[in-house]
Amino acid sequence: MKQAGLLLVIMLLATVQTTDTGRARQGRSGTGGELVQNCTLYFEFLGRTGAGREDTFELDPFGMGYCAGLVRGVANTAHIHMTDQVCVPEDASSAQAVWAVVQYLNNNPLTLSDQDTELVLRAMQSAFPCR
Amino acid sequence: MKQAGLLLVIMLLATVQTTDTGRARQGRSGTGGELVQNCTLYFEFLGRTGAGREDTFELDPFGMGYCAGLVRGVANTAHIHMTDQVCVPEDASSAQAVWAVVQYLNNNPLTLSDQDTELVLRAMQSAFPCR
Repeated sequence: MKQAGLLLVIMLLATVQTTDTGRARQGRSGTGGELVQNCTLYFEFLGRTGAGREDTFELDPFGMGYCAGLVRGVANTAHIHMTDQVCVPEDASSAQAVWAVVQYLNNNPLTLSDQDTELVLRAMQSAFPCR
Repeated sequence: MKQAGLLLVIMLLATVQTTDTGRARQGRSGTGGELVQNCTLYFEFLGRTGAGREDTFELDPFGMGYCAGLVRGVANTAHIHMTDQVCVPEDASSAQAVWAVVQYLNNNPLTLSDQDTELVLRAMQSAFPCR
């Protein structure tokens, strides 16, 4: 029975791994629907400690890294080169920027088929407007 | 002996995992030095097939996702909103953009302590200039 359980765990892990690797290359749609999943998970990870943290990390590390990179890339580029549109405070954390994206996507579900880069930009404009 | 080998593998995996999770939150420097590692690995992953592909993916999925997201975020934002500076061809692939970043960083090693977002932008300006 124990062996059957172990086999099941190994099979599940293998499935997750394959799916994860596959999505990393081919299955990424680059839309808001995928982004809200990645960023919600990453935000959860940022707030966790201990074993729960490891468990969350294992769910989709590529997706979380993608969220982290995309949000940083868009926020920094906009903050430095689109100075009339996005003004991120000096003390804003990565978690705050990620949370702004999650909130924006949850509040605007009709945009979930839009391109993820544009959605992050709109979220930054909404959360960190220039006064 | 076999058991000792298995234990070693498990310990190594646990170490990699912990380091990976730690880097995901705290150890990211956000510089070119880290980016060249992430993007070189991701480019390698994109070109691989079979078991080698899985092995490469396992090395640092968060870092590869970070590269993918950062390059996409900066390239798209610049292409759409900084139209006089970056003109990415319609048929350019993600792999081409990632390769442009790796090449730029390898050709400009003195910039490796600069901020990663700015380096991606410079790489895009260099690889995809507007004529």
